Amino acid sequence: MQYETKKRSVLKALSWRTWATITTAIIVFIFTGEFALAITVGLFEVFAKMGLYFFHERLWQKINFGKKEIPSFVLWFTGLPASGKKALAESVYKELRKDKLKVERLDSHDVRPLFPETGFTPDEVNRHVKRAGHLCAMLEKNGVIVVASFVSPYRPSREFARSISRNFIEVYMDTTVAACESRDEKGHYLKARKGEYQYFPGVDIQYEEPFNAEIVVDADRLSLEESTQQIVSYLKKHVIKNS
Amino acid sequence: MQYETKKRSVLKALSWRTWATITTAIIVFIFTGEFALAITVGLFEVFAKMGLYFFHERLWQKINFGKKEIPSFVLWFTGLPASGKKALAESVYKELRKDKLKVERLDSHDVRPLFPETGFTPDEVNRHVKRAGHLCAMLEKNGVIVVASFVSPYRPSREFARSISRNFIEVYMDTTVAACESRDEKGHYLKARKGEYQYFPGVDIQYEEPFNAEIVVDADRLSLEESTQQIVSYLKKHVIKNS
Repeated sequence: MQYETKKRSVLKALSWRTWATITTAIIVFIFTGEFALAITVGLFEVFAKMGLYFFHERLWQKINFGKKEIPSFVLWFTGLPASGKKALAESVYKELRKDKLKVERLDSHDVRPLFPETGFTPDEVNRHVKRAGHLCAMLEKNGVIVVASFVSPYRPSREFARSISRNFIEVYMDTTVAACESRDEKGHYLKARKGEYQYFPGVDIQYEEPFNAEIVVDADRLSLEESTQQIVSYLKKHVIKNS
Repeated sequence: MQYETKKRSVLKALSWRTWATITTAIIVFIFTGEFALAITVGLFEVFAKMGLYFFHERLWQKINFGKKEIPSFVLWFTGLPASGKKALAESVYKELRKDKLKVERLDSHDVRPLFPETGFTPDEVNRHVKRAGHLCAMLEKNGVIVVASFVSPYRPSREFARSISRNFIEVYMDTTVAACESRDEKGHYLKARKGEYQYFPGVDIQYEEPFNAEIVVDADRLSLEESTQQIVSYLKKHVIKNS
């Protein structure tokens, strides 16, 4: 996850030109023909400078000046079930991928199947979220941008995830239980109302909304495009900046 | 975690020379003085080719040909408590860092304090090891080499870690309970014998040795230097190869 700055290229151009011009000057000094000279110098140069350029490149391969890492961060989506976290996270993920950034996508629906023994008691959810936060932080530390979406209804485990990350950006899907329930295609709220689930956030347990989310998405009013744009703008302004 | 191949540099040298030689030939053709010509050409070239070189570099910045990722892998140390996993893992980690590789180090002693609620029952240990395996696999997927050391006494959770990694290299510290007990400076075995621990591998529960470890370290006979060399040689032969 590296790119080369313009400074680096300017320096390479300067260092290359120093070598190449000295070589050309010496060659032209030695051969003093007139018309044929242009061709001779050209041909001679092909052999003389080709090797020089190559070794020049290989030398720069060992120099780290002007090579930069794009700053990584953890973008953590939290909110009630069916609040639109996953769709929005996917949409932002796709935008980031367009810029060829190194991005990893983590969703509770992808992680939980790997650990079927993880239940839904507050204790188990907290442990699940903390481990996910640790995973995010380790990826971030190694230069990977992480787009994570977990209901993560409890403040303490979200705060844990924040505490071990370097650059944690919390995205809160601001909506109501009623609004989520009305758009819940999978029927999870219905099942929770019937008592088929325990510990269902918004029905059995309270979802603890964040006090200090970096981004609050008005999930009931904004379209997917608008909320994607809100987040991408925030990232470009505060995190990615111009690279 | 990228490096540039020699092929890439040869191609850059070819493409640069095409531009530069054409430019030189035209310049020499226009100016046909003799001695002064060398200097004139040189000076003119400084301005003409400097910009050209720069844009040439920026163009190549967008071309991925010849840029390679060094293959990542998970190096997983398993063995009884006090079998020397941690010291050996640290030593191998340092060797890999010398080559400027992107390496992450994970040890149970660093991870467990983050999750103090994780106990030592077989169920909890399996969950802990599975989550650690997932973390390793995600880092590996993102180009990071992982050097992990966990007692990981149960085969199923180690096999889970293997199953979700791309390139999983299991290092088994081959030793005996008696040998570990004799070098256990922290007195864990003593406490386990006194019944202060439950589920202590080698005392209360059986450590399930791997059937198919890629590397078996004769922990009782080899010095730290020798076992480090054994692992580094394996990696250079099978994984890192010549880059």
